[in-house]
Amino acid sequence: MDQQHIFIQMALNAWDMQISRTEKFLDAQSDADLQKEIAPGKNSLLYLLGHLIAVNDGMIGLFGAGERSYAHLDEAFIKNPDKSGLDMPDASTLRGDWKKSNAQLSALFKQMTPEDWFSRHTAMTDEDFAATPTRNKLSVLLNRTGHVAYHLGQLVLAK
Amino acid sequence: MDQQHIFIQMALNAWDMQISRTEKFLDAQSDADLQKEIAPGKNSLLYLLGHLIAVNDGMIGLFGAGERSYAHLDEAFIKNPDKSGLDMPDASTLRGDWKKSNAQLSALFKQMTPEDWFSRHTAMTDEDFAATPTRNKLSVLLNRTGHVAYHLGQLVLAK
Repeated sequence: MDQQHIFIQMALNAWDMQISRTEKFLDAQSDADLQKEIAPGKNSLLYLLGHLIAVNDGMIGLFGAGERSYAHLDEAFIKNPDKSGLDMPDASTLRGDWKKSNAQLSALFKQMTPEDWFSRHTAMTDEDFAATPTRNKLSVLLNRTGHVAYHLGQLVLAK
Repeated sequence: MDQQHIFIQMALNAWDMQISRTEKFLDAQSDADLQKEIAPGKNSLLYLLGHLIAVNDGMIGLFGAGERSYAHLDEAFIKNPDKSGLDMPDASTLRGDWKKSNAQLSALFKQMTPEDWFSRHTAMTDEDFAATPTRNKLSVLLNRTGHVAYHLGQLVLAK
């Protein structure tokens, strides 16, 4: 394995680790548990689940990999806070979306080449990217991995 | 910048981002605030601060970079949970340790070469490393970055 592949694999391992830890936590919760707040007056588990699905799905857009599957969740789970009064899918729908979204992202990541990973994401111009080549698709993955870890730290408090 | 330096820089950027977000949060808390729990019955801010210092400092050992500076925090902040009854340094001491630890780690990271980052850490044997070259020092940094993000997600709940 050359160094380029090693690094990509390291970033994918870090992603997989956070996703599988989150999955393990969610699998241990009943649908009723998902209605709970992580702490009194804070976000519900359901809101954070929808938030993670929508933010993770955003990578499909940033990577220029076609139509997003869960853009319809952005309004209730990214653009607005919990308890906004907006409709939310029920717990079992979001559980299914979570699994499907992860499978879709895994499949996408698997077919990406090193050149893809080190290319600019769609929210950057060519000029910006020339100045800061560290802001590539792989850096988006690192960033989203940290985002999952951040909210996983919150989810586990509901235990 | 060649690709090797680009991805080391990406990992360092991800680390710096989590540390500076945590720093910004801590700077906005009074010493009295640090006594608070992140949620009723959960860890105190002070415990999580000591925990982060001790775990981050552990990289000095894993990187074979000499004596650790904060190994004395392991007992109260890693090996035991909050409210163990063990002595804890006061808030202003831990704030100082946090800043000094981050400065020490930054200085260490800055002088590490790409060869250093892609070499095995001290908790791995040569045989293990030959089988899984992704488990190098840079993967430790990615992992510890996720660990900071996880606990930062908890710290901010005290707001």
